[in-house]
Amino acid sequence: MTTAEILKCAVKAKANIACANTDIKNLALKKASQFLIRDTDKILKANKLDTQNARGTVSDVMLDRLTLTSERIKAMADAVLDVIKLPDPVGNVLENIKRQSGLDITKVSVPIGVIAIIFESRPNVTSDAAALSLKSGNVCVLRGGKEAINSNIAIAQSFRDALKETGLDENAVSLVTDTTRNSSLELMTAVGSVDLLIPRGGAGLIRACVENAKVPCIETGTGICHIYVDGKADIKKALDIVENAKTSRPSVCNAAEVCLVDKSIANEFLPKLYDRLVTEKLKDNKIPVELRLDKFASKIISGNIASSSDFDTEFLDYILAIKVVDGIKEAVAHISEHSTGHSEAIITEDEKNADIFTSLIDSSAVYVNASTRFTDGGEFGLGCEIGISTQKIHARGPMGLKEMTSYKYIVRGNGQIR
Amino acid sequence: MTTAEILKCAVKAKANIACANTDIKNLALKKASQFLIRDTDKILKANKLDTQNARGTVSDVMLDRLTLTSERIKAMADAVLDVIKLPDPVGNVLENIKRQSGLDITKVSVPIGVIAIIFESRPNVTSDAAALSLKSGNVCVLRGGKEAINSNIAIAQSFRDALKETGLDENAVSLVTDTTRNSSLELMTAVGSVDLLIPRGGAGLIRACVENAKVPCIETGTGICHIYVDGKADIKKALDIVENAKTSRPSVCNAAEVCLVDKSIANEFLPKLYDRLVTEKLKDNKIPVELRLDKFASKIISGNIASSSDFDTEFLDYILAIKVVDGIKEAVAHISEHSTGHSEAIITEDEKNADIFTSLIDSSAVYVNASTRFTDGGEFGLGCEIGISTQKIHARGPMGLKEMTSYKYIVRGNGQIR
Repeated sequence: MTTAEILKCAVKAKANIACANTDIKNLALKKASQFLIRDTDKILKANKLDTQNARGTVSDVMLDRLTLTSERIKAMADAVLDVIKLPDPVGNVLENIKRQSGLDITKVSVPIGVIAIIFESRPNVTSDAAALSLKSGNVCVLRGGKEAINSNIAIAQSFRDALKETGLDENAVSLVTDTTRNSSLELMTAVGSVDLLIPRGGAGLIRACVENAKVPCIETGTGICHIYVDGKADIKKALDIVENAKTSRPSVCNAAEVCLVDKSIANEFLPKLYDRLVTEKLKDNKIPVELRLDKFASKIISGNIASSSDFDTEFLDYILAIKVVDGIKEAVAHISEHSTGHSEAIITEDEKNADIFTSLIDSSAVYVNASTRFTDGGEFGLGCEIGISTQKIHARGPMGLKEMTSYKYIVRGNGQIR
Repeated sequence: MTTAEILKCAVKAKANIACANTDIKNLALKKASQFLIRDTDKILKANKLDTQNARGTVSDVMLDRLTLTSERIKAMADAVLDVIKLPDPVGNVLENIKRQSGLDITKVSVPIGVIAIIFESRPNVTSDAAALSLKSGNVCVLRGGKEAINSNIAIAQSFRDALKETGLDENAVSLVTDTTRNSSLELMTAVGSVDLLIPRGGAGLIRACVENAKVPCIETGTGICHIYVDGKADIKKALDIVENAKTSRPSVCNAAEVCLVDKSIANEFLPKLYDRLVTEKLKDNKIPVELRLDKFASKIISGNIASSSDFDTEFLDYILAIKVVDGIKEAVAHISEHSTGHSEAIITEDEKNADIFTSLIDSSAVYVNASTRFTDGGEFGLGCEIGISTQKIHARGPMGLKEMTSYKYIVRGNGQIR
């Protein structure tokens, strides 16, 4: 099917999935989980084709992300079962207003409608996104990366079989098979068909959406996350947190990219940071962090001199930009100018500075004495997430099932006129 | 100042107004209200210039909307005082999550930031929008219609004086003085400066925003509202409600434009509707409603034959399109295809049909036996509104102070790493 045909079917499927009750949706999810296991051989075969095509054209890290095993498929199926346990976000009464006129106004949560999701290589996103959309009564139109196309088709088919067998419209989950730039552009401009577009991917994809999208869009996942080590920081906590935020998983959006250090503590802290991120890593046969230093920091420790663009780059790698600042005011000003609004942390034992930081920093998650790596639906106790919003309207930070709903007002009267 | 300069100042004013406490914001509002009264002569003089320029180029209705009197200025000032009484939407703890790790996560409401509002002729919007933005801790960049430019400058100045005298950044309220298409385009594309764009106006403005906006945008105020008169309708209620929804104020977005009538009741209902909207109006020396009828209806009552575009037009006038449908299923299908998602009503005494209608109709407000004219922040008990959203993300229906906020997660730890 062409993308236009897929969208037409998606719009038609809206009412069917929106009105399905919790039991039916959970049954479909259960079947989808079973069918993923049932279809393991087919999915692995499709995945083998993808990895063969990709070999040599993508990095080893990418290739690993792309590769499925029966364990990984089992993990996908288990994640679908986890979604069954989450509360249904649809049909909840959010507010009830009784007016003097006798009007009874109920604000009730409803699905958003057709959600288009553009994402990159990992095929498990197909399964995760389909499960979350289904549970929240939304139709999803999935557009994955070309490297994973065969895997994605196979995974989506397991969901479509499950929908069909449950008596739901199979078009509630569909996959765009055109993986050229055209199909992304079609989704971005499908005014009247796509109710919400969620791009999941790197800065390039987000930029393309900002530039081209005519449908409502929620930007996700670009994180130039900062850690400010205040003059009143506990040095041990600061070292642990910077190390964790930078090196525990550098390729994810909640990893830290920039460390700001108060100049009053720089002479003491920076050499210790160097030991932690470079010397000790080398000693332990681990990957050392490449430090990119502003002028001031470069006088204290060794490393590369940072170019100005280093403070506006999501490295997603073992690279950390370091800048010495003159207190919290300069830290806040730097972050306000350079942050993508994802996650920022202050390390301090000073309550007042913590308060200044949390009130002035305008990011989805603002931390005091904890790693930015916690910005995650599961870690926040919100359940699975469809992405981490760096926007300020609709949803901010981890977007779970609740953020995949809208609401409407149902007004019951007895002939009232105004 | 150029629009670019205004935006630069607006961004700089964000933290100042975002951190202002309720008392300070209310004091600024009180002063703004006083200054509107103080500046009455100046505002009237500016308005006179506007009305003189507009005379002959706009309709009488437009000219009346544009015209200010000292009473209208008093009403504006009173509306500002009303905003003082509304609860502060900023700084509310929306959720508190304590994690086993010891992390303490607080979800707290925050201002959105810089809100750009593009609106048309009525100068009181300047005052209303400035008051709501100020109370919700947002910076507003107002871009009104060219007809009202002098009035708008004068009104905005009263607010800026009030901000200054309260010790707040006067740039928290600013007015774009370039009223060419350029400034609208600049606001629509001000990525990084404008956090939210709210166009308030006709279908043309909304279309231009959909087409050009690169910043997050909430469409407001286009209402092709439907009333479905079910086979089980109480005829008296149906007549009252259709008359009210069509004729009480035809120029507003919650007025009805289309009446769908079940064919089982059409022979009885339509002649009565004709009497109510045409015969009686003429008898009372009031404006009769022009009826635009589908084929079926035109066999029962007289009126003009509807063209297909009449079912996709927001008339904003004494015109009603009428179509006879084969029961609730066809009514829902017609509305799903032609509605702008604003407000729709069913008139019925049948609970089952009411439930089908409220669950299947995907509009911001869905009525049973009441007039669509109630879709309004005040009528819903939500306080003033900045507009009525016809979108499904962020806000739907009347957007009050609460809908002018976002949230962030403040996470306090004691050295936690992941």
